[in-house]
Amino acid sequence: MFRQLISLDEAKRRIEKAFSPKPPKTEEIPLLKAVGRVLASDIAAPMDVPPFSRSTVDGYAVRAEDTFGADEDKPVMLKISGYADVGEISKLRLEKNYAMKIVTGAPLPSNSNAAVMIEHTNEENEKVYVYKSVVKNENMMGKGSDIRKDAMVLKGGTILSSQNLGVLAALGFAQVKVYKKPKVAVISTGQEIIAPGNPLPLGKIYDINAYTLTAALLEIGVEPINFDIIQDDNVEVLKSTLENALDISEVVITSGGVSVGPKDILPNIIDGLGEPGLIIHGIAIKPGKPIAVAVVGEKLIFSLPGHPTSALLTYQLLIRPFLPLLTKQKALPSTTLRAVITDKVFSARGRRTFITVTLSQNDAGHWLASPVLEGLSGAITTLAKADGYIELEETQQFVESGEEVDVLLFKPVEDIGRLS
Amino acid sequence: MFRQLISLDEAKRRIEKAFSPKPPKTEEIPLLKAVGRVLASDIAAPMDVPPFSRSTVDGYAVRAEDTFGADEDKPVMLKISGYADVGEISKLRLEKNYAMKIVTGAPLPSNSNAAVMIEHTNEENEKVYVYKSVVKNENMMGKGSDIRKDAMVLKGGTILSSQNLGVLAALGFAQVKVYKKPKVAVISTGQEIIAPGNPLPLGKIYDINAYTLTAALLEIGVEPINFDIIQDDNVEVLKSTLENALDISEVVITSGGVSVGPKDILPNIIDGLGEPGLIIHGIAIKPGKPIAVAVVGEKLIFSLPGHPTSALLTYQLLIRPFLPLLTKQKALPSTTLRAVITDKVFSARGRRTFITVTLSQNDAGHWLASPVLEGLSGAITTLAKADGYIELEETQQFVESGEEVDVLLFKPVEDIGRLS
Repeated sequence: MFRQLISLDEAKRRIEKAFSPKPPKTEEIPLLKAVGRVLASDIAAPMDVPPFSRSTVDGYAVRAEDTFGADEDKPVMLKISGYADVGEISKLRLEKNYAMKIVTGAPLPSNSNAAVMIEHTNEENEKVYVYKSVVKNENMMGKGSDIRKDAMVLKGGTILSSQNLGVLAALGFAQVKVYKKPKVAVISTGQEIIAPGNPLPLGKIYDINAYTLTAALLEIGVEPINFDIIQDDNVEVLKSTLENALDISEVVITSGGVSVGPKDILPNIIDGLGEPGLIIHGIAIKPGKPIAVAVVGEKLIFSLPGHPTSALLTYQLLIRPFLPLLTKQKALPSTTLRAVITDKVFSARGRRTFITVTLSQNDAGHWLASPVLEGLSGAITTLAKADGYIELEETQQFVESGEEVDVLLFKPVEDIGRLS
Repeated sequence: MFRQLISLDEAKRRIEKAFSPKPPKTEEIPLLKAVGRVLASDIAAPMDVPPFSRSTVDGYAVRAEDTFGADEDKPVMLKISGYADVGEISKLRLEKNYAMKIVTGAPLPSNSNAAVMIEHTNEENEKVYVYKSVVKNENMMGKGSDIRKDAMVLKGGTILSSQNLGVLAALGFAQVKVYKKPKVAVISTGQEIIAPGNPLPLGKIYDINAYTLTAALLEIGVEPINFDIIQDDNVEVLKSTLENALDISEVVITSGGVSVGPKDILPNIIDGLGEPGLIIHGIAIKPGKPIAVAVVGEKLIFSLPGHPTSALLTYQLLIRPFLPLLTKQKALPSTTLRAVITDKVFSARGRRTFITVTLSQNDAGHWLASPVLEGLSGAITTLAKADGYIELEETQQFVESGEEVDVLLFKPVEDIGRLS
């Protein structure tokens, strides 16, 4: 097993290359539950939308040519031959110099080709005076003018927004074929880790990473599969749990057990689970250096550090961006926000350094980034305070107080300051 | 029943004032499912975190005072009295001029008060030479230094982020008390409307609004309750359906049936459902003018126009921002993005005008906002193309091509261009 620190950029390249999973499985689900899901196939329109020509105004259906020359001084008089209501196709055909009363959304009667707005008319004794001429197709939506039958309306791979679902509804779809949510196994390891809800023996601490990672996966529409904590450093138990996790998920994330110490056995185990094995063992970043990544067939195993900030940060850097590839989506870009840093911060020499920050807005509405105190590197409260992080290049020694920085966000911009 | 157009700002004020619901109901849910939910009560720490003093390095637990004066030329020699492993509390007490081997995360033995990094030591024959002195509390996290027992850690009303859940996990909580999701009823009305999945009789069209509105509600964590389409304009059926909807939800949204025409009966009905009744009947905006809003006790009914763009836009303007008030959250700010408009656009005189736009980025990374063709005002495809909208003040006549505008977004910035 090799052990050689690689750069963050090289690590990202290796991971992106390794995310070439089998084609995702699909399922049919109700349209009402499909928001945010990924469309599994191209959709062609099975029908015209609208399915008939409709008026877009309250007024009168006409033959446009019968209104030509009408103006405020010289209205055109048309005889009224009936009323076109919504939801019904009138059996009447519009004859020359006739008009039919119509409401917004109602089908135009046959032989009509425009509508006149009620504001430009005056009705008297079964006759209507038209004070403004219309041209063909005016004040109406022609059959198929919105969506033409057989037109391609949505491509496979589209993430279904509320608006896309509106398009599918307009075409009469009540169900839609989407990719199944990718499954990601989450496993915490460590002799000292106890699941919350249980009594805490002396010398033990409660598991944090399973909760932060599960929540982060749920936020991007991935289905987490939670495993019991592996408290034993018994290689056989670790190995069989990981094999089981690989069987039922696309990606496995472990936390804990990767640091180089007497307990460093995970990188060895994940390297031995199948071919091609370990592709990363240590990255020149701070925090997060001892991360290990292995590929087993088409599946990936990430061994993150146990330290909560390191685990969540390495997840944000190296896993979250690539999970959309499991449903044939593009990698997820980071959301960044430009801010002024309030204190001088230093990098770890030769390693890409990440410093968590809390964001606030000054009276002028400018964003300020305050570095979260680094004193307590294992602290969960410092992680909870972080809205995002800044990145210092390997060659950069420090960022001076007052400089502008790009903050990579842990949460949507709208939630900054709302989540306390 | 009055009918008087009011300004958008006045409408927002009336709606915000009307959103003063009963205290939300609460429920206990597993921590693993709580991301994005709203914490229902303040949380005080039931224990210290960490629950014992822990080393943050691999090295040796020491009494800091025993290392004073140590430097590279003149190491201090300490005798090794044992090994402190993670997950166990050592029974040994550290005597003067002794050190105990320790790994990251392991409890410090009693009487020790700091740790020395292994890099600054050299071990030989049960002795360790320390080449750098440490001060008290160095390289360790003291018991309770992250979270002190009884400290207030999270306030009721907090939206639970992955990081907040980490804090609750660290404190041993496996369950958390959150507000129940607010329930919002969604009802489409109209004689011409048929639910997708059913055959389409001549003259009818498929329902769109139930799908766009349901999806938009799900996106912000609200529980939609979908009702069957009310195809009948029978006042009694409408009334009893609305009464039923009010019984089981906090807010009711109808679409269709509000325009002033022969079919305009909804504003009348919603005004008659209880006190105080109609608070808005018509807003000076385009599109969306015929919106009506009524208050019945502590509940609200919104009657949106039937036209899909108008329905979704009025939802975005007047309902979405205020729904967080149902779980005691602040109103949701709109996310805006600065862009250059690619074509001249005009306002509707005297009405706040909203123009939907599609966003793209030019080679320099600047955002361009292209107005979505307004020609087909009922078109679902034009709505599907919209990434957001721009707002023209009542007094503003037009925006010139090339001017900078604020685009209010329909979707998170990260999704612009990803959702096709």
